[in-house]
Amino acid sequence: MTTYDAVIIGGGVIGAAIAYYAAKRGQKVVLLEKDSLAAHSSRAAGGMLGAQVEFPEPGPLVELSLYSRTMFRELAVELQQASGIDIGFNEAGMLRTAWTDEEKQTLLKQATWQRAAGLKADWLETSDVRVLEPAVSSEIKGALSLPDDTQVSAPHLSRAFAVAAARLGAVLVERCAATNFRMKGFRIEAVQTNQGEFSGEQYIIAGGAWSGELTKLLGAPLSVFPLKGEAFSVLAVPQPITHTVYSHGCYIVPKEGNRLLVGASVQDCGFDDRLSIGGLHQLMAKAVRLLPDIAAYPLEQTWASLRPQTADGLPYLGRMASVSNAIVASGHFRNGILLSPATGEIVSRLLTGEAPGLDLSAFAPDRHQSIPAS
Amino acid sequence: MTTYDAVIIGGGVIGAAIAYYAAKRGQKVVLLEKDSLAAHSSRAAGGMLGAQVEFPEPGPLVELSLYSRTMFRELAVELQQASGIDIGFNEAGMLRTAWTDEEKQTLLKQATWQRAAGLKADWLETSDVRVLEPAVSSEIKGALSLPDDTQVSAPHLSRAFAVAAARLGAVLVERCAATNFRMKGFRIEAVQTNQGEFSGEQYIIAGGAWSGELTKLLGAPLSVFPLKGEAFSVLAVPQPITHTVYSHGCYIVPKEGNRLLVGASVQDCGFDDRLSIGGLHQLMAKAVRLLPDIAAYPLEQTWASLRPQTADGLPYLGRMASVSNAIVASGHFRNGILLSPATGEIVSRLLTGEAPGLDLSAFAPDRHQSIPAS
Amino acid sequence: MTTYDAVIIGGGVIGAAIAYYAAKRGQKVVLLEKDSLAAHSSRAAGGMLGAQVEFPEPGPLVELSLYSRTMFRELAVELQQASGIDIGFNEAGMLRTAWTDEEKQTLLKQATWQRAAGLKADWLETSDVRVLEPAVSSEIKGALSLPDDTQVSAPHLSRAFAVAAARLGAVLVERCAATNFRMKGFRIEAVQTNQGEFSGEQYIIAGGAWSGELTKLLGAPLSVFPLKGEAFSVLAVPQPITHTVYSHGCYIVPKEGNRLLVGASVQDCGFDDRLSIGGLHQLMAKAVRLLPDIAAYPLEQTWASLRPQTADGLPYLGRMASVSNAIVASGHFRNGILLSPATGEIVSRLLTGEAPGLDLSAFAPDRHQSIPAS
Amino acid sequence: MTTYDAVIIGGGVIGAAIAYYAAKRGQKVVLLEKDSLAAHSSRAAGGMLGAQVEFPEPGPLVELSLYSRTMFRELAVELQQASGIDIGFNEAGMLRTAWTDEEKQTLLKQATWQRAAGLKADWLETSDVRVLEPAVSSEIKGALSLPDDTQVSAPHLSRAFAVAAARLGAVLVERCAATNFRMKGFRIEAVQTNQGEFSGEQYIIAGGAWSGELTKLLGAPLSVFPLKGEAFSVLAVPQPITHTVYSHGCYIVPKEGNRLLVGASVQDCGFDDRLSIGGLHQLMAKAVRLLPDIAAYPLEQTWASLRPQTADGLPYLGRMASVSNAIVASGHFRNGILLSPATGEIVSRLLTGEAPGLDLSAFAPDRHQSIPAS
Repeated sequence: MTTYDAVIIGGGVIGAAIAYYAAKRGQKVVLLEKDSLAAHSSRAAGGMLGAQVEFPEPGPLVELSLYSRTMFRELAVELQQASGIDIGFNEAGMLRTAWTDEEKQTLLKQATWQRAAGLKADWLETSDVRVLEPAVSSEIKGALSLPDDTQVSAPHLSRAFAVAAARLGAVLVERCAATNFRMKGFRIEAVQTNQGEFSGEQYIIAGGAWSGELTKLLGAPLSVFPLKGEAFSVLAVPQPITHTVYSHGCYIVPKEGNRLLVGASVQDCGFDDRLSIGGLHQLMAKAVRLLPDIAAYPLEQTWASLRPQTADGLPYLGRMASVSNAIVASGHFRNGILLSPATGEIVSRLLTGEAPGLDLSAFAPDRHQSIPAS
Repeated sequence: MTTYDAVIIGGGVIGAAIAYYAAKRGQKVVLLEKDSLAAHSSRAAGGMLGAQVEFPEPGPLVELSLYSRTMFRELAVELQQASGIDIGFNEAGMLRTAWTDEEKQTLLKQATWQRAAGLKADWLETSDVRVLEPAVSSEIKGALSLPDDTQVSAPHLSRAFAVAAARLGAVLVERCAATNFRMKGFRIEAVQTNQGEFSGEQYIIAGGAWSGELTKLLGAPLSVFPLKGEAFSVLAVPQPITHTVYSHGCYIVPKEGNRLLVGASVQDCGFDDRLSIGGLHQLMAKAVRLLPDIAAYPLEQTWASLRPQTADGLPYLGRMASVSNAIVASGHFRNGILLSPATGEIVSRLLTGEAPGLDLSAFAPDRHQSIPAS
Repeated sequence: MTTYDAVIIGGGVIGAAIAYYAAKRGQKVVLLEKDSLAAHSSRAAGGMLGAQVEFPEPGPLVELSLYSRTMFRELAVELQQASGIDIGFNEAGMLRTAWTDEEKQTLLKQATWQRAAGLKADWLETSDVRVLEPAVSSEIKGALSLPDDTQVSAPHLSRAFAVAAARLGAVLVERCAATNFRMKGFRIEAVQTNQGEFSGEQYIIAGGAWSGELTKLLGAPLSVFPLKGEAFSVLAVPQPITHTVYSHGCYIVPKEGNRLLVGASVQDCGFDDRLSIGGLHQLMAKAVRLLPDIAAYPLEQTWASLRPQTADGLPYLGRMASVSNAIVASGHFRNGILLSPATGEIVSRLLTGEAPGLDLSAFAPDRHQSIPAS
Repeated sequence: MTTYDAVIIGGGVIGAAIAYYAAKRGQKVVLLEKDSLAAHSSRAAGGMLGAQVEFPEPGPLVELSLYSRTMFRELAVELQQASGIDIGFNEAGMLRTAWTDEEKQTLLKQATWQRAAGLKADWLETSDVRVLEPAVSSEIKGALSLPDDTQVSAPHLSRAFAVAAARLGAVLVERCAATNFRMKGFRIEAVQTNQGEFSGEQYIIAGGAWSGELTKLLGAPLSVFPLKGEAFSVLAVPQPITHTVYSHGCYIVPKEGNRLLVGASVQDCGFDDRLSIGGLHQLMAKAVRLLPDIAAYPLEQTWASLRPQTADGLPYLGRMASVSNAIVASGHFRNGILLSPATGEIVSRLLTGEAPGLDLSAFAPDRHQSIPAS
């Protein structure tokens, strides 16, 4: 049996990014995916790089998000060469709209701390918004302009990481589900799957919403749980908007091929990943309110997926306390696309024994287990 | 070139029914369909046999509708034998709900004339409705029970007519679009198509929403125009309802295989048959209001189609005044499934020179042309 | 937590049949399905009731197969009433063709023992075959007529069992994957799933190709492994055949709605259930050889699924030796549809402590474990 | 009613290219498409720019093809800016393989005249081919290397032309079918459609396989007829080839997203555009012979479309003799993608009264009508 430097469990955008950055550092890795590559939330995502829009207040995830966002311009060129795939990096930026004066005040506060942190975040009155985007509803109460919250194509990014990793020697195994771990003391000897055992020096848990199940097999279950997101796309010739437009609970992202991608509901339904009538029609209603013309556009596709959320809303990123050769990278909720390059780079550094380059203590996998112990 | 007894133009449920009844009378017929059989509104329909629900007031279409509805019980058995296809005849009946007292008064009036005409139409208070169908919203203001407004599976009925006709010797030609007519005086000599000419003693125009175009080629354009209907289906195990439940602008029909079929919007968009966001989300909102549990059910499919409407809302059924060997059977709007057996039988009688059995004067194809002449 | 009489793990046709027969006997059952009901081989199957065609020689599975086949005529009526679903029982029978004289001799031998056993199995020369089915290739070397190897619609049968069970009080839980068992000595206390624990007096393992994984969690892994089958369907108006036509490695089954269903390759690819180019084109070539007209018919759909096979080709049916309250019903390979009613009835008897009615020793789950012990 | 400079009938890649180049020259154009943009062969095409592979011998179409091929490198950049769409221009080139010595001789002759014309066309022995592409069958008899026969993504090119044209002011009308022309002498006054009349100074017939029907309405029917092409795609991680590989009747084109696109059969079935079993399985067999590994790859999609062929195999490009303000651009058969930029540029010159820049006499729309007259 081949022994790899690292066995990555999970073939979403996080696992694929780790495979890519690890392979760049010369690591021999194998990636195990229970379904097909990027089959779940990595394929379903809107692709927004919302390092600013996602954070009404400063917090531990901001630094990581901003760092990851800066990586994309160069990454787009690098992945194009390494994989032949264009990740659809689109620098048009985002408009975060308000429907009420109260919401406007919240957004103004958000602008204040972000500008103080050196970020671009300007308030536009409704008339100015409509100069930029005449198709947006005239009933909004202005919008926060976030020109650096750009976007990529989520499925293209995921595929590009995987293909580039494969070209650097990474082995990608689809339809391969981990069923158990063979342990020797606190060390994993092998992961057991429906395709036999895989063995490596180190193991990465990157199973998205299924990471809770995986860590349960290791005796240290992490509180990662699925939150369903529902979305749809429409066709529009020509495109009515060039920026991403985002209101409470609804974002509309212009995509190549004259598509508009509209997301996303947030529903707690366990592992049921089917689109529900309730979620879809409320999302459609919000989209019509924000961009009235959308009512007349033809529906292209509908879909749903399970995003991995954690108890405190922060991802798990770092070594497990109770298993000596396991690293966790999961729980990215709605920010998996945005955080994928930084996550991949950091985990590749941990694998080779380098300093991660950022303080990861807020993301420690054992942060919750330690609380009841005190 | 074969000369047929009749050339039927249009392979929806109306054309297929005519082919079946004509073939039963020994006529040698060919049916020409520009796309595939039952590709448009015949496949999309909810399949309700709404001979009562569709008529708030008495009128010329009532007699034809009631007569056609009575044909289905026997037809289900007959088509099962003749085609091997089960048309899904379901006798559970319909509940027509009211949301307001005003709507209730309208429905009570409808019940009055229908009962006077010997039909079953009883008013149920909300509590009684919910004994029958506990999943229906408690906010309704009662419902009209129409136990004889039963249902079939629209695509199965259309296919069954076509297959049964083929087994009796009818020739079915798909992907065959009529482009013109070769005339000799007031008589059609042949219809020209992308697959060559077809010649017959008589010609039937059964082109649904495209009948206006066809009759334009004959120099006597009928005012048949498309009205788009949008619909969707959900999966539900077990079925929450057994009756068809119908509120203003929204019906929910229980179907085999634990599906619920929900229809239908009415939109005037010309020949654009794509599903729009606006139509779909309003229909979903109505369905959730009527059957609140539906919000949690998974979406199965969405679709849209073009139904043939006329200026006065009545179908065209009878011989054309200006062409000696042409019969029109079109403009059935939302009642094509319901009216298909009666239409098929009547046209087959006209073909063989028999009396139609019903007064068709209200449906005469030339009724509009004559108005401006007065 | 509710305690059920029985917890059934697996929602294919076998699990659904067990749920139905157990519910008929008054058992309170819950059925857990990791994906959706009948999502895998139960939906993909051709639906042939091949109790004769599958057996070139007598053997332990013959009696069970013949018994199960006799149940279908009555079952079709019973499930129609109990579920509202027509299972598409079609009594046209099967023609098993030969391509070579050698194959003909094999089939004649098969006919000999089957007739001796009182079964219908007549040899037809090619000219006689073509009187019955003029569209079959003239190059065949005759065919064995098996008029009692009839057929049903596999997805309709699976759904009908599930819906009928639900109407009798069975609880159906989809998207519910078993991850482990909580044991007390040799007894299962509960099954752990992604939707929490389920507890019952008895447990049924009916996981199809995934049954090996399930029994591994119980410490007594059964050798059930997946064999992929690929299939496709075409549209044909009118139907060119009325019987199922079967040659080596290829069967063509006429289905409602003018479809022909063509199956099936047999490939050992682990749990990869995607359609391969190699499997599909060889199956198409065989179908064109057998029914030359099929070359011109339009493709409707393609699919693949994983069928559960065992080391000796016999299903597992009976109590586990090492777990006191577990019953296995799995490994039915290509005969799951055919064997579903008998399997459901037998397991329901085991659950209530009755005699199974048939000798099950050849199907004992521990038959392989005991061999090395001797 | 608006009067346009030009009314373009047909929204495939040819119509869209004309709209783009005409809009660039300041023409106000409207494009009418009966279905949706690029719905037929423009979406289905392999995207090869086969200006050399398509021509065993010199001929009138070579100069136009080579000229059009040179336009793509610059066009890729231009359309990216003008539309935001990446047309997937891939410069890896093509290998045209031989299966027999006879085929090798034919290809060597083709190489001889192409090299004499200054084109790159080198013969590679099998071992050299397999250094470049190790996955190609070892049974080939060498291959002709055509490094300048590059490729684009056909659906992206078509959309990019349309979107760029729309941004320059072109009006795109989908679901708009021409039904007749209103004439004044030899001049078109308006085209009549299901969405009313459209009027322009000039009219372009760019209806692909439907151009014969359109010109029939003008009294000068051109012999354009449909030839069906069938194709499929597979998924492959990582990509087994980087060049397009082309053998008799089968090409395999590597596409973004780790897809391989395989085309194409050539079948004369009138306007029936459905995929047939016969066409698909023969194409799959050819692909497996050429690239044996493909047998194991999963099928992604299958499709078919109608390509416009003419009696002498040359497109129609130029003014109609019998209608004073009509230009034809149709009959591009398998070369529509390749010829689209040159066709668009030339027609835009004809519209503005400039010299076309190339001798178009071989492509004159009236070349066939004039023959019987002599």
